[in-house]
Amino acid sequence: MYGKKIIEFLKSNGIEFGDIIKVEAEGISEEGELMPSTEANSEDIIILKMKNGYNVGIRFEGSKISKIRKGVPAHEFPHSEISQKKSLPKVTLIYTGGTIGSKLDYKTGGVYMLLKPEELLYEVPELANVAELKVDPLFSISSEDMSYIEWQGIAKRVHEAQKEGSRGVVVTIGTDTMHYASAALSFMLNGIDIPVVLTGAQRSSDRGSSDAFMNLFCSVVLAARSEIKGVGICMHKTSSDSECGFIRGTRARKMHTSRRDAFRPINEGYVATVSYEGEIKYLHNDVALQTQDKKAWVPLAGFEKNVALLKAYPNSDPGIIDYYLSKGYKGIIIEGTGLGHTPVSTEHEYYSWLPNIKKAVEKGVIVGMTSQCLCLLLLCLYGRVNPNVYRNLRLLSGAGVIYCEDMSPETAYVKLGWLLGNYDAGTAKKMLNSNVAGEINSRSNYRDFLV
Amino acid sequence: MYGKKIIEFLKSNGIEFGDIIKVEAEGISEEGELMPSTEANSEDIIILKMKNGYNVGIRFEGSKISKIRKGVPAHEFPHSEISQKKSLPKVTLIYTGGTIGSKLDYKTGGVYMLLKPEELLYEVPELANVAELKVDPLFSISSEDMSYIEWQGIAKRVHEAQKEGSRGVVVTIGTDTMHYASAALSFMLNGIDIPVVLTGAQRSSDRGSSDAFMNLFCSVVLAARSEIKGVGICMHKTSSDSECGFIRGTRARKMHTSRRDAFRPINEGYVATVSYEGEIKYLHNDVALQTQDKKAWVPLAGFEKNVALLKAYPNSDPGIIDYYLSKGYKGIIIEGTGLGHTPVSTEHEYYSWLPNIKKAVEKGVIVGMTSQCLCLLLLCLYGRVNPNVYRNLRLLSGAGVIYCEDMSPETAYVKLGWLLGNYDAGTAKKMLNSNVAGEINSRSNYRDFLV
Repeated sequence: MYGKKIIEFLKSNGIEFGDIIKVEAEGISEEGELMPSTEANSEDIIILKMKNGYNVGIRFEGSKISKIRKGVPAHEFPHSEISQKKSLPKVTLIYTGGTIGSKLDYKTGGVYMLLKPEELLYEVPELANVAELKVDPLFSISSEDMSYIEWQGIAKRVHEAQKEGSRGVVVTIGTDTMHYASAALSFMLNGIDIPVVLTGAQRSSDRGSSDAFMNLFCSVVLAARSEIKGVGICMHKTSSDSECGFIRGTRARKMHTSRRDAFRPINEGYVATVSYEGEIKYLHNDVALQTQDKKAWVPLAGFEKNVALLKAYPNSDPGIIDYYLSKGYKGIIIEGTGLGHTPVSTEHEYYSWLPNIKKAVEKGVIVGMTSQCLCLLLLCLYGRVNPNVYRNLRLLSGAGVIYCEDMSPETAYVKLGWLLGNYDAGTAKKMLNSNVAGEINSRSNYRDFLV
Repeated sequence: MYGKKIIEFLKSNGIEFGDIIKVEAEGISEEGELMPSTEANSEDIIILKMKNGYNVGIRFEGSKISKIRKGVPAHEFPHSEISQKKSLPKVTLIYTGGTIGSKLDYKTGGVYMLLKPEELLYEVPELANVAELKVDPLFSISSEDMSYIEWQGIAKRVHEAQKEGSRGVVVTIGTDTMHYASAALSFMLNGIDIPVVLTGAQRSSDRGSSDAFMNLFCSVVLAARSEIKGVGICMHKTSSDSECGFIRGTRARKMHTSRRDAFRPINEGYVATVSYEGEIKYLHNDVALQTQDKKAWVPLAGFEKNVALLKAYPNSDPGIIDYYLSKGYKGIIIEGTGLGHTPVSTEHEYYSWLPNIKKAVEKGVIVGMTSQCLCLLLLCLYGRVNPNVYRNLRLLSGAGVIYCEDMSPETAYVKLGWLLGNYDAGTAKKMLNSNVAGEINSRSNYRDFLV
């Protein structure tokens, strides 16, 4: 919070939050919007939002502050003025929150959700030439607060849009858990015959370097024009604004907290790219991402929340398995080391995970093994996580652990939750390490590493 | 296990395990070493180890099998014949196990540890021109079974080697948890004034494509000749045999289960490279990886094992925190989503992590936050995981969570275990998010992403 001195200075000089001011101090001269201060111990620090989107704090004492101009109030978005061509393909834009629709709140200095999705249309008028858009504000929720209940809600809405004749669907969503959501929707909507494109932004749309608009544009292009059938993520492919990449929903991972090209396909390449000019290039031979069965298709959106994802690491306590047993959990995905290891040595008394895993399996809990390595390839003809190569892996396999092939831990977790929400345990167990929605490749390509 | 038919055929044709045989079947003709079979349900499958190191299984029924030649028994390694030059720098090679010294065991078909480190010297005679080597077989343990007790043992041995006048130390170690070990040794040996080089192999030394020898050679070069002071990992920098890269011990991550260039520096670049010709290039200005204080230096090798590393993800159960509280844990590192999130919404009753985290902090447990994104950069002048940007992050920060800057979850886990093993809780809490051994950069370079 600003101290008395600053508040009095601002008042007497007629400066308000949002006004453009210039602050000059020793070796510093910055112009920007005056921001409110939220720091507890920074009474004499002036906070500016600079043109490049960064905030900067400058000590008030000894600085010279001048008002450049009055701040402009937020746009009244004239969304009703956008005329849409009825001849274009119908695309439904389902809006669920996230940075793609977030905005700085001057009252707190934090980032809040935009509630008007029309603002996005106002920002990207080019969309009017690509599709006849229907905007569907489903909810507004932060990435970190999205649960399987929201995934089910999105699946239902996508199904409705498909039934209403949408040629494709775009879902704007928070990026932090987007790869979990894309995996969940890949399973829930497995077999859908239209493109379902998840997109978001790494930088909010009020920032000069925002990726929101290009991601949205490319996603709508894919929904309106591509031959893709199924669920995936469309985000920046590079850190420049050259093109977006489309990643199969069960293969994506968020690799960076802030880079625009943070999303990468794991254990396979991009399915397609889209340029800012709207040109689509297919990089996979098969753009039907999942099994198609038009007649019978309905979403399968059950989800069992009593499934855990946990990490095994040096010194880790296997008692965590017992905790989940006591809570009635039905499935556990372990993120093991290397090819899928947990400690198994009996040398240190607290150490071996084997007895706990055995107990869980005996009680009917499905225990799946993945790797905390980013990419998973075993140089063996028989598969990726092959328990026959290392003795300790064989011990785990003997205890009933199911090796999840080249699935990422996140996808394996979502898949097990989905399987147990829709099938009996026996069927779920069989399906865990066989392909449903592109999450397991019969042979991963060695070159698909950090593409 | 092989069935009766195969066993009888082998006997009557004088073929033994290890012999080179040819198997011809429909469309297949393979030569290789006859391997024992370990599969339960494959009585009629012949297992061959091919020249390229792969195993292949071919159905016995309907195939034509002929013996090419008798298998050659394993080398008797003439390690006593290696003459060492006393004028070369002294390097201690501490051998702790892992693939770098692993070998296929024909009795089980699995990979076992070599117990004679001299075999490595026999394989890399070039080492005799680089250093006067002392080989120290400390123990032989799988990567996944290595605990803080072994880390402490290695730290002690390195210190002894330094006191005995070694110019540098090489530690051969399993790769799966090598980045945990390198972080632990970076803290335990913080301030050491010689190079301590951890190395291993992604492919065992009996494989044609093994990286064991080049990694070992380059590591010994660094130990014998480099100006580096401190702990790091030396492994292949690319998938070819062109050069090795040296990564600061607190910055490494194993990114791939089998590629030779699986280890990558996270949130910074390589410290140095070494070519197969022994040329060292320094890529950092400062090769003293940690604070140097020669006079007072002793290892600080305490470790608190009651520290947990856990993942927060959609639908995740915050009760896991209570489990660790009930077990008397003193520290918890959370691998959150995005910039360091857990679910905080109160919309779903089981969902918010805030009350559990608050309770843990009130009980004196140190709760640190990291990101499950690979790389961590927040576009903000004030730091990487900055709780002031997002409202939900601020809630977590308010609950007492310590944001661990640009540390990886693995390094943060090891650091907190090390801090609580050597300092009181108050000091540990203060030190968690300030730099000790290069694990936190004042400013991460945006370009250091997937280098």
